[in-house]
Amino acid sequence: VSSPPGEFALIERLLSRLGRPRRAILGPGDDCAILRPTRARQLFTIDSLVEGVHFRLTWGTPEELGARALTVNLSDIAAMGGVPTAAVVNLAVRSGLNLAFFERIYKGLGAAARASGVEVVGGNVTRADQLAITIALLGEVRGGAMRRDTARPGDTIYVTGTLGDAAAGLRILSRRLHGRGAARVFLVGRMLRPTARLKAGQRLAQIRPAPAAIDISDGLWQDLGHILERSGVGAEIDASALPLSDAYRATVGDDPALALGGGDDYELLFCLRRELAPSALSRRLGVMVTRIGRITAARGATLVGTDGARGRRIPAVAGWDQLRSRSGA
Amino acid sequence: VSSPPGEFALIERLLSRLGRPRRAILGPGDDCAILRPTRARQLFTIDSLVEGVHFRLTWGTPEELGARALTVNLSDIAAMGGVPTAAVVNLAVRSGLNLAFFERIYKGLGAAARASGVEVVGGNVTRADQLAITIALLGEVRGGAMRRDTARPGDTIYVTGTLGDAAAGLRILSRRLHGRGAARVFLVGRMLRPTARLKAGQRLAQIRPAPAAIDISDGLWQDLGHILERSGVGAEIDASALPLSDAYRATVGDDPALALGGGDDYELLFCLRRELAPSALSRRLGVMVTRIGRITAARGATLVGTDGARGRRIPAVAGWDQLRSRSGA
Repeated sequence: VSSPPGEFALIERLLSRLGRPRRAILGPGDDCAILRPTRARQLFTIDSLVEGVHFRLTWGTPEELGARALTVNLSDIAAMGGVPTAAVVNLAVRSGLNLAFFERIYKGLGAAARASGVEVVGGNVTRADQLAITIALLGEVRGGAMRRDTARPGDTIYVTGTLGDAAAGLRILSRRLHGRGAARVFLVGRMLRPTARLKAGQRLAQIRPAPAAIDISDGLWQDLGHILERSGVGAEIDASALPLSDAYRATVGDDPALALGGGDDYELLFCLRRELAPSALSRRLGVMVTRIGRITAARGATLVGTDGARGRRIPAVAGWDQLRSRSGA
Repeated sequence: VSSPPGEFALIERLLSRLGRPRRAILGPGDDCAILRPTRARQLFTIDSLVEGVHFRLTWGTPEELGARALTVNLSDIAAMGGVPTAAVVNLAVRSGLNLAFFERIYKGLGAAARASGVEVVGGNVTRADQLAITIALLGEVRGGAMRRDTARPGDTIYVTGTLGDAAAGLRILSRRLHGRGAARVFLVGRMLRPTARLKAGQRLAQIRPAPAAIDISDGLWQDLGHILERSGVGAEIDASALPLSDAYRATVGDDPALALGGGDDYELLFCLRRELAPSALSRRLGVMVTRIGRITAARGATLVGTDGARGRRIPAVAGWDQLRSRSGA
């Protein structure tokens, strides 16, 4: 579309340096990439990071930004239990950024791609007022695929890792929360350098029947809402069971509001027909797993807790309001 | 990524209305779409339309915009000779636009998808300062694939359709050119409602050896430059042979500058080892085909002409300068 200014050609060239395609028959530089046929079912997703909405350049390094742009997509593949394979990148470039900056973005993106076995096979560069990185990612389903619409009453609900760290990190970065020392470093790192739970997702997808699953990108409460809505069920969540990191407790305290409503954690939420011990699941998935509640036949999501949280009003952080209005809870 | 405001959920729901997936196993509404395995090689591409860069809302209807966002991607599939199959859509939404507007965008996008056999299987909505529609598209190579890097000295160069119409239409829309009557309607329509030459591309891809090909999105001169650069060859183009529409001649005159340098035509440029008569090719491809020059061993692109264009300096419209500096012509 339309003629890019001269520097764009250079930025486009960066794309072609992201790695020599192995599985791809033809990589960047033509109208389309050419990929080999697949015997597996394929996963297909798209996600975007927009400056001023999802990141500010003052928060971290360009390398972190490039890696995170891929990770938010990898997390969608992880939530289905898939193996990521090939990506195309659309870069919206604003003025005031130099070529070295984009080289660093691509360096981070390329490293994240190599680490996850993804080939960046093509891309597009456009002018815009805001920097934005939009990535479409393909993956393969080699075992079963985990979906949002298969949760059943009686299922046990689990999450990987700890919740609310990235939301706390975001608030530290935007000076709405004070953090210090190692706790600050940990929380900010969880925001800027999230991990997609690819291995955990792939191992989960081998369980029969396949768990219902989703990645927690918009906050536990909102993403749980997607599962409930698509599956036509409800849930009871134990507030006291929510996995909070030491850094979270040191910085935020025991209030689970950010763990419930804050986004950007990129942990997995999943629902098992047969209850398994969190310790066994943790070993199997290679990441800490916590049991947080149960799927119910009654619609809506209820928050209960053994530490006095029962009946406590959860602060209306993002995600919480939406689920409440949607589910009638 | 991050929590969208309430209305976003509604806009996201629009996506799921774009059609009932037939080939897809799972359409919009989960972390990823699930597609069936393919026996064919796959094509993968991404392209973006950004408000203020590629379009203004005052130029046309939301339906036209939605359709055009898909067409610019379809054109990349056409240039490879492929059959488009599945798309994911990233919509960047700015404030000041209502739900009815997005319904109309999706209506146009959905109609274009149905007309080209594409399933919109997923998407993402994000907030931004500029409206932008970014689409990643998959296709299949059922015969041969046309590439940019297979042009050889002696090949004959052809284009489909007429050139420069969209560039003239753009200049009329932005009041840099005066157009009137049917000519104005035609030229503006070529800008707002481009056609991807899918059938022509698929039929071209059956010719052996497979033609080198590219779609003319950035202007003939610049896109020819991509073929020359990737193939390591040069070209001689006959200025007097460039196919100009009656509307172009009535509005712009006989100056081929816009036909050489203007973008957004989405016609195909292709190079045949064995010269075929344009009339026979036109019948075969279902669209007018014009012979415009020849691939040379000597690098660089040369413009010659029988109407006194030889040696004429081509105005430095977008695309022309870039090729000149890149190819050393």
